[in-house]
Amino acid sequence: MVDLHDLIDLLPDGAVLTDPDLLAGYRHDWARDPGAGTPLAVVRATSTADVGATLRWADEHRVPVVPRGAGSGLSGGATAVDGGIVLSTERMRAITVDPVTRTAVVQPGLLNVEVKRAVAEHGLWYPPDPSSFEICSIGGNAATNAGGLCCVKYGVTTDYVLGMEVVLADGTAVRLGGPRLKDSAGLSLTKLFVGSEGTLGVITELTLRLLPAQPRQSTVVATFASLAAATEAILAITGMLRPSMLEFMDSVAINAVEDEMRMGLDRSAAALLVARSDAPGEFAAREAELMVGACEKAGASEVFHTEDPDEGEAFTAARRFAIPAVERIGPLLLEDVGVPLPRLGDLITGIAAIARRNDVLVSVIAHAGDGNTHPLIVHDPTDAANTERAHRAFGEIMDLAIELGGTITGEHGVGRLKKAWLPAQVGPEVMALTQRVKDALDPHGILNPGAVI
Amino acid sequence: MVDLHDLIDLLPDGAVLTDPDLLAGYRHDWARDPGAGTPLAVVRATSTADVGATLRWADEHRVPVVPRGAGSGLSGGATAVDGGIVLSTERMRAITVDPVTRTAVVQPGLLNVEVKRAVAEHGLWYPPDPSSFEICSIGGNAATNAGGLCCVKYGVTTDYVLGMEVVLADGTAVRLGGPRLKDSAGLSLTKLFVGSEGTLGVITELTLRLLPAQPRQSTVVATFASLAAATEAILAITGMLRPSMLEFMDSVAINAVEDEMRMGLDRSAAALLVARSDAPGEFAAREAELMVGACEKAGASEVFHTEDPDEGEAFTAARRFAIPAVERIGPLLLEDVGVPLPRLGDLITGIAAIARRNDVLVSVIAHAGDGNTHPLIVHDPTDAANTERAHRAFGEIMDLAIELGGTITGEHGVGRLKKAWLPAQVGPEVMALTQRVKDALDPHGILNPGAVI
Ligand SMILES: Cc1cc2nc3c(=O)[nH]c(=O)nc-3n(C[C@H](O)[C@H](O)[C@H](O)COP(=O)(O)OP(=O)(O)OC[C@H]3O[C@@H](n4cnc5c(N)ncnc54)[C@H](O)[C@@H]3O)c2cc1C
Ligand SMILES: Cc1cc2nc3c(=O)[nH]c(=O)nc-3n(C[C@H](O)[C@H](O)[C@H](O)COP(=O)(O)OP(=O)(O)OC[C@H]3O[C@@H](n4cnc5c(N)ncnc54)[C@H](O)[C@@H]3O)c2cc1C
Repeated sequence: MVDLHDLIDLLPDGAVLTDPDLLAGYRHDWARDPGAGTPLAVVRATSTADVGATLRWADEHRVPVVPRGAGSGLSGGATAVDGGIVLSTERMRAITVDPVTRTAVVQPGLLNVEVKRAVAEHGLWYPPDPSSFEICSIGGNAATNAGGLCCVKYGVTTDYVLGMEVVLADGTAVRLGGPRLKDSAGLSLTKLFVGSEGTLGVITELTLRLLPAQPRQSTVVATFASLAAATEAILAITGMLRPSMLEFMDSVAINAVEDEMRMGLDRSAAALLVARSDAPGEFAAREAELMVGACEKAGASEVFHTEDPDEGEAFTAARRFAIPAVERIGPLLLEDVGVPLPRLGDLITGIAAIARRNDVLVSVIAHAGDGNTHPLIVHDPTDAANTERAHRAFGEIMDLAIELGGTITGEHGVGRLKKAWLPAQVGPEVMALTQRVKDALDPHGILNPGAVI
Repeated sequence: MVDLHDLIDLLPDGAVLTDPDLLAGYRHDWARDPGAGTPLAVVRATSTADVGATLRWADEHRVPVVPRGAGSGLSGGATAVDGGIVLSTERMRAITVDPVTRTAVVQPGLLNVEVKRAVAEHGLWYPPDPSSFEICSIGGNAATNAGGLCCVKYGVTTDYVLGMEVVLADGTAVRLGGPRLKDSAGLSLTKLFVGSEGTLGVITELTLRLLPAQPRQSTVVATFASLAAATEAILAITGMLRPSMLEFMDSVAINAVEDEMRMGLDRSAAALLVARSDAPGEFAAREAELMVGACEKAGASEVFHTEDPDEGEAFTAARRFAIPAVERIGPLLLEDVGVPLPRLGDLITGIAAIARRNDVLVSVIAHAGDGNTHPLIVHDPTDAANTERAHRAFGEIMDLAIELGGTITGEHGVGRLKKAWLPAQVGPEVMALTQRVKDALDPHGILNPGAVI
């Protein structure tokens, strides 16, 4: 076993936690992987220098390091490994906003919601909005290339990362890109680190591109008696215009949310869509009317259109709350499968068949507009047979997504829980290429071992 | 010297050119690097298999391969090397468009304009629009991460590349990404290959994201008696709204364009801006009025606003024609420096000082809205002293951009001509990191040696 004293000496007082009670809080991310290890220590870095010192020490002693943002990940990417270090960014929280270049320079530990608030003070908007925006870090967002609700129109995290500082496995800090909207100087390394899930380096600073404040949104809420009608409406809407949001909940999710929030959702509906438009001025209402028409034409049982931002926000919040709401039924295995949009109906009906066949409850919610679904598999960890069936369904859903030309993860990342399915999606040549990049950047394999590859 | 017969046998009849007269046409790109080598042969691949066979052969025999699209590059990225192969994609021209997923699958040799036309038949739009759109290939666009006029609002090529097929240095073809709007499965390798300038692999197919047809644009044209007034207007416009285009020409460019196109541009102006809005419906005209106001407030000498798309297109074409127009004055050294927007004025006045100091003619045109300028250094290759001064100015302009927190290349890429300045911009650690990635993917260094690194 390595001696931690050197590391403790290298870092500011209190940066290294070793108390088992405290360590326990850093073993899991939101996926609560039962196979999580127990770390040797947690380092709560306060600066790039702390991160560099930790990695230099770890690389030298071949100690695994699991980078950790806010631990809201859903694929076990931040799961601790036995005898390793958890490197938390929670104390790195500075931000500066430059309204003239419309950029912000942010340390990784700041929460997404805090970034949004800080830039809003300058009349600006940082679009990426994972449902977890109040509990996830901006560094974790970059490391997972997080998506969210508005990405159907505004893209994902990578589209907003202009530059970063990242500390490599050997402790070297490099600066990539910068506050320039266009920069073709050298390889696109910034983009390589976005979505690398802590396997290539630790992000210690981000330069983010911002937009002017989002225009006021119009909101449409529609319920459907069948899944087929709902998916027809989704295709009709995306074929016609670019909504600023297009979200889906199935009957289980509707009921789970209604149990908690009591907002009068139709409990008998098979599906509910929340669609929004942020086209300028009265165009938002016009687009909303077009979406109302598309839902009606697809056979919606009820369609509701509001121009009131608070009312629209309430429905958006209901959709965002779907994961925690369904989780109250029981622990979840969380999927994140995506397919090309025309296969969305096949995916959703296929998931229902998998649930029936394995006799497990699966609720589907989705960022429907970009074909990205979150099947939530409810299971009972005290019931071994049920748990086994749930895991079988978990795998079958990913197999189905791959079969439909889709992806095992649209936004949460591969982490540890989806790793076994990655080769089936991308093939052996891409796995070999991935390994070559990994070996070039982290030759001793200390960064997040066991994740992704 | 290697024996070409094996290679010829591996490929379809007529794929390998060795006739010196034909080879001459493949030695240069648009930058006409006088140091260009003479290739052993040109391979005009017809398929991914041809590209694979060529690279396998070249890797085995350690023969350098320069990938080539349409040869419109401005940084010597496609300059031939002595004893190497030029691998041209000009015969790989298939395209299929899927209006439901709003994607197109394209072979690399198709010209940008041909992609735009093919998708327009389905009512769709491929935004990236380098001024060279009629003479550059989509594969070259991906390899350089090309920008253009609309990227101030719509982003650059990487924002539209969802997936690709790429052949690695050893001849292995890999498929990355696909027709999915969101995909977090594994490292962001697609993005790594975009902008890699033929140094990491040869792109043999692209899956492109498309948008609905662009709304009709309003156009504002303004002339200014001083550069300071023009840059003030640029900052005022970008601070207020998101134009769909914001282009700049200086007095030399105005006169060169007017010489060729006779459209009545004000020859006495120090600067001309062409700005457009594609906000929906009447919002375009409203935004145009706001831009007119900003130009007037900044002290424009003349401001003209038109809703007529043909008239707007004529001014856009004039701006696009600026490089060839200035080239009629004399051969050009083409810059592509970019700075954070607030430094644009400093850059433009600094360039004027460099021109004066070195006694050379420099015309500046710019994608002003994203701080990306193209100083065009006119020189006389028959006059050694003038050529030397021009090269000195070329370097000083890049030094200035770096000093102002900018980039030596906003969109054209580093190629061979800007390579010497890359380390000064990105620093030794990033150069070392770049080399590690390069070595991992192209261990024998056969792909585009001498470019970028
Ligand atoms: C209720 C709920 C809803 C969610 N909804 C969405 C959604 O809509 N869209 C979406 O994309 N995600 C969603 N998520 C998942 C999760 O919030 C995102 O993946 C988020 O980006 C993780 O951020 P984090 O700070 O919590 O990262 P963590 O969980 O701490 O880590 C995630 C991964 O990133 C790595 N990492 C973290 N910080 C760094 C760093 N600074 N440098 C290098 N690597 C680092 C870790 O090693 C790990 O691999 C949701 C989660 C929950 C619980
Ligand atoms: C008048 C004029 C105006 C221009 N305006 C713009 C502009 O507004 N914006 C802009 O970005 N550029 C502009 N350019 C530059 C140029 O057109 C772009 O860089 C374009 O993307 C190059 O495409 P190409 O097919 O001509 O590539 P080439 O010149 O053939 O090659 C360019 C680079 O890409 C590599 N490459 C080409 N194809 C492949 C492939 N299939 N796989 C791997 N590597 C490959 C080459 O090795 C080389 O490094 C302009 C050029 C001219 C002449």
